[in-house]
Amino acid sequence: MIKVVAKGVYLEGKTDEAIALYDEMVKETRNEQGCIAYNLFRDKDNKDILTMIEEWESVEALEAHKNSEHFTRIIPKIARLRKSAELNVYELIY
Amino acid sequence: MIKVVAKGVYLEGKTDEAIALYDEMVKETRNEQGCIAYNLFRDKDNKDILTMIEEWESVEALEAHKNSEHFTRIIPKIARLRKSAELNVYELIY
Repeated sequence: MIKVVAKGVYLEGKTDEAIALYDEMVKETRNEQGCIAYNLFRDKDNKDILTMIEEWESVEALEAHKNSEHFTRIIPKIARLRKSAELNVYELIY
Repeated sequence: MIKVVAKGVYLEGKTDEAIALYDEMVKETRNEQGCIAYNLFRDKDNKDILTMIEEWESVEALEAHKNSEHFTRIIPKIARLRKSAELNVYELIY
């Protein structure tokens, strides 16, 4: 299992626009082969932080996701709304 | 549901020591009231990054965790092994 945490700090007032764009990403991605979980979270103390926490069956499934039509179409639009982004790909220890 | 992502960048060579300390934290914490998930991950591309991803039924459960005997005893020891730490408390959107 591969865990991905993709954290973004958004430009002021742009979080809602990003959440709307993520709506389609969530619907499409959850239908992908090997997608275990794909959930969007907002920081309770800072409304400008949105983080996608994902689980994939394999590195291959994650790579296919990054090459999918919806990813290549939507993620660049979301990226333009961010001040900064931090992405970590994890393996489980406990 | 409350999601917590606690990311630490560890001093060189100190990750294994931290993982050993987390072993007891994981065993104790998973028995706590309101603990849904408490999993330790290591970054696939940077062995000095360990991240705890947690799920709690409520803010109260998370607060009780932070006041627990094992938290107050073990987390300071882990903290001494870190260069930096980043903690986000999240609410689910999708």
